[in-house]
Amino acid sequence: MSVTFGDVEAAWARINVTRTPVHTCATFDALASHTTPVELFFKCELFQKTGSFKFRGASNAVAMLSDEEAINGVVAHSTGNHAQAIALAAKARNIPAYVVMPHNVPEIKKIAVRGYGGTVVECNPPQKAREKAASDIQASTGAVLIHPFENPRVMAGQGTIAYEFLEQVDLDALIVPVGGGGMISGCAVAAKGIKPTIKVFGAEPAAVDKCSRSYNSKTHQTSLPGSTSVADGLLTTLGVNAFPILLSSVDGVFTVTEEEIVRAMKLVWTRMKLMIEPSSAVGVAVALYNNEFQERVKKDKLGRIGIVLGGGNVDPARAIELFERYK
Amino acid sequence: MSVTFGDVEAAWARINVTRTPVHTCATFDALASHTTPVELFFKCELFQKTGSFKFRGASNAVAMLSDEEAINGVVAHSTGNHAQAIALAAKARNIPAYVVMPHNVPEIKKIAVRGYGGTVVECNPPQKAREKAASDIQASTGAVLIHPFENPRVMAGQGTIAYEFLEQVDLDALIVPVGGGGMISGCAVAAKGIKPTIKVFGAEPAAVDKCSRSYNSKTHQTSLPGSTSVADGLLTTLGVNAFPILLSSVDGVFTVTEEEIVRAMKLVWTRMKLMIEPSSAVGVAVALYNNEFQERVKKDKLGRIGIVLGGGNVDPARAIELFERYK
Repeated sequence: MSVTFGDVEAAWARINVTRTPVHTCATFDALASHTTPVELFFKCELFQKTGSFKFRGASNAVAMLSDEEAINGVVAHSTGNHAQAIALAAKARNIPAYVVMPHNVPEIKKIAVRGYGGTVVECNPPQKAREKAASDIQASTGAVLIHPFENPRVMAGQGTIAYEFLEQVDLDALIVPVGGGGMISGCAVAAKGIKPTIKVFGAEPAAVDKCSRSYNSKTHQTSLPGSTSVADGLLTTLGVNAFPILLSSVDGVFTVTEEEIVRAMKLVWTRMKLMIEPSSAVGVAVALYNNEFQERVKKDKLGRIGIVLGGGNVDPARAIELFERYK
Repeated sequence: MSVTFGDVEAAWARINVTRTPVHTCATFDALASHTTPVELFFKCELFQKTGSFKFRGASNAVAMLSDEEAINGVVAHSTGNHAQAIALAAKARNIPAYVVMPHNVPEIKKIAVRGYGGTVVECNPPQKAREKAASDIQASTGAVLIHPFENPRVMAGQGTIAYEFLEQVDLDALIVPVGGGGMISGCAVAAKGIKPTIKVFGAEPAAVDKCSRSYNSKTHQTSLPGSTSVADGLLTTLGVNAFPILLSSVDGVFTVTEEEIVRAMKLVWTRMKLMIEPSSAVGVAVALYNNEFQERVKKDKLGRIGIVLGGGNVDPARAIELFERYK
């Protein structure tokens, strides 16, 4: 269940997504130039359809279904960006989308899914109950489950971020936030396929550091019970399919504190005017505040650094709450 | 003291500004297609250097000074975006910038000016005191005053927004928010120079409707005493130099309520992920909510409508306050 450069190239040719812009900001370059001068390039997936990069992977997975598979629609269980992405991808193919969501999820998330034509199926909050609800729907409707990060077609779709990014600008390094690992594994395959010398780094909240622990110990680790982070989009287990790609194609994983994440997020809001969600600030925080990363930049002479801003789906009131909390 | 198309073309060749992107959003197209289907195009000047379009006009005015005029620097009195714009434009030419600001202005605005290398000169709040402080600096330093909207070189610089916009997309109409009128007059001259059939419309808060009263009565009107708006960037008198251009080259001025401004702003934040300031939402509100405008769209068959999003310099906490107040 791996992903090849050819899979990413084919995904890129197949999916109908927004070619998101790359922004730069002199203020950020100055802040990130600690040991050596660097230029930062920000890939603005917050401007992707549905407000996040997840639409790339969902589009690729939905588009690759045969007509027979597709006819009964698709199922996802997600409380986040994958939910909206699946709903819109299914709408584009004119097939039903069933999205399983715990009944206690904020109404606005259900409205978003319905707004893209998806059917919200409510369930009880525990993970087991969600999985049960999803497999019940599969059984009763014949719809196909699209996993948010274990599905290799989803991973290949996320890889189109890096494919497009390197078509837009030349980079020495790429920083990608890690949740389930679908984005970083697709991006690592894509980036190294285009430019084998590029360094690809993972960015993770120190509070939920299962990826850096897995990477450093070379054994798949799970999140510690009860651990959490303001970067809610990254709160998930590390994908079993992402893990081997992480070991073979990623050059390091760096962690940042909760305060660093929020400070970086506020800077992106106020200086770049980009309304990113907390998860998207994690890569920025690595570039600005992580000493180990800065040593690496110097050692490997990484002058041009790309950072993926994955999404912008955050309630502005929650953002302000975070800004106040970590002020 | 007028502005010609040649002035705008020359400004465009002269100034070193960010070529800001044009965004679109299917949700907004749907919301604006009342009487007839329309496509909206958003010119993202919030991504301009210093966070607003004001840098275009300031750059042009500073660049056009002779070496003799420039040597003693420039003066501005502004509490808003013109202040930062002048500071950075002066820095680019390596000359001093003195910005007069009332002592009660939020510290963050002074920090922004100093961050761009400008010298903040504090004064008492009344308009007269500010003008006095500015002319004292002129007298003692020999610096040149750059007025935020009466200066024709500033007006020509703002016109480069429309010049660039029409190079990026074809438009049937252009909506520009009006404060002092520097932006709309420059843009009207530029747009009609490129495409004589284009319609150019002003957008204004109904609460401070001096422009629409001036336009409709064909006599220069001042703001009513004590009138105010959430769109703080537009709270100024209508320029004497802008007024005749308004009459000759603008095709209508439409007003919107405070609630409509805030609703439009929130939609732009949450759906387009663009952190615009309240003044920049005024044009969006006209496209979405003004009935008279919608009748005009139908009558004149205006399918492709451009809207200038002038800036993004707003404290996120203030934005949330507004969203709550008009919820």
